[in-house]
Amino acid sequence: MKAIVLLSGGLDSTVCAVLAARSFQANQVAGLNILYGQKHFKESQAAKNVANRLGLGNYETINLSKKLFEGAGSTLIDKGKEIPLGPYPQESGPVSTYVPFRNGTFISIATAFALRVNAEAIYFGAHTEDALNWAYPDCTPEFLGAMKNAVWVGTYHRVRLITPLEWLTKSDIVKLGHELNAPFELTWSCYQGGEEACGRCATCISRLKAFKTNGLIDPIKYQAIGEG
Amino acid sequence: MKAIVLLSGGLDSTVCAVLAARSFQANQVAGLNILYGQKHFKESQAAKNVANRLGLGNYETINLSKKLFEGAGSTLIDKGKEIPLGPYPQESGPVSTYVPFRNGTFISIATAFALRVNAEAIYFGAHTEDALNWAYPDCTPEFLGAMKNAVWVGTYHRVRLITPLEWLTKSDIVKLGHELNAPFELTWSCYQGGEEACGRCATCISRLKAFKTNGLIDPIKYQAIGEG
Repeated sequence: MKAIVLLSGGLDSTVCAVLAARSFQANQVAGLNILYGQKHFKESQAAKNVANRLGLGNYETINLSKKLFEGAGSTLIDKGKEIPLGPYPQESGPVSTYVPFRNGTFISIATAFALRVNAEAIYFGAHTEDALNWAYPDCTPEFLGAMKNAVWVGTYHRVRLITPLEWLTKSDIVKLGHELNAPFELTWSCYQGGEEACGRCATCISRLKAFKTNGLIDPIKYQAIGEG
Repeated sequence: MKAIVLLSGGLDSTVCAVLAARSFQANQVAGLNILYGQKHFKESQAAKNVANRLGLGNYETINLSKKLFEGAGSTLIDKGKEIPLGPYPQESGPVSTYVPFRNGTFISIATAFALRVNAEAIYFGAHTEDALNWAYPDCTPEFLGAMKNAVWVGTYHRVRLITPLEWLTKSDIVKLGHELNAPFELTWSCYQGGEEACGRCATCISRLKAFKTNGLIDPIKYQAIGEG
């Protein structure tokens, strides 16, 4: 393999996978999906479908112990905590859907996987709106820069962390994915693990808005369309 | 809790735990031990014994999927690969006991644990001889510096990574631990998971030499004493 893509099954990582498959041969790209106790584990099946559609050369799911992230108060994980509805808050600071240092763990695990399959690159789809207002500090350019150094140094200079969406908005990503025929219809973004996307949680609202801004229709089904 | 210490059960992390317990109250320090498919899983019991002896306020073992590190050729993990005997090589480059980006994963998991128990510091015992000749790139000051940034930024500036042994040799660490009454007799370093330490693998040799340099007797039992 030449490259790894961290594939959640969502829209951003799907566009990342398309970019990796364009830079390398699709069959030289390996998809890595990580289950971490998230309520919306449904996205894992979406990841698999995307990997199949793109013809990735390798695909693995790693099932992490729930113990790693449970009990820190994340609404994406903890049973007693409700996922909030409505858009991401405008004010700066922690969001309840932050999973403690999740992306540090994901990038580290992807690095071990990259070394195992002799890949030289890891694609990771954090984008500028994830980083906005310190919502997800483990998506900021500062965090990613630090991890890029750690990955490069910590692998005997063999593996690089690549973040092609780092400076793009959700709307930019939808535009790019549309131009490159990303299989948006296979993706899953909703934080709630329902039958259809809820249309009312922050990630649904952000996604719907990004399609609307581009004059496009989101091809997945929604229960309701929330206010963006 | 105020601080976490990554406690392998070895000599270095035990001295780290002693330092953490001196900077904070011992009962405000939590030990974190990680099983990762290592052949010398015996060290895990040593970690527990050290945590008990020091009176740490909290102690957890996390059992990671073997899948994370298996198959990348590490002699510490892969069944078909023999752990080499003799001292660490003098020439620069990869050692066969390197586990792919293990410390990135460990530090990330410790960060999640720190956030869960509201700790502000993570103690990690990498030292200068681990980093020597690029033996373990995920122990170098450059790697640790990058991870310090990643941890600080990725936790909303709540958690710091502290590496008090970063510029010490093994001999310095034995000296320091001896002065602070670190319970060396409870520790386990040997890469082979035998009844007694083998005395012939690189980590046994390095440990024995460090005691000898200080004019001290290593209190643990050895099968044999190898050449340092």
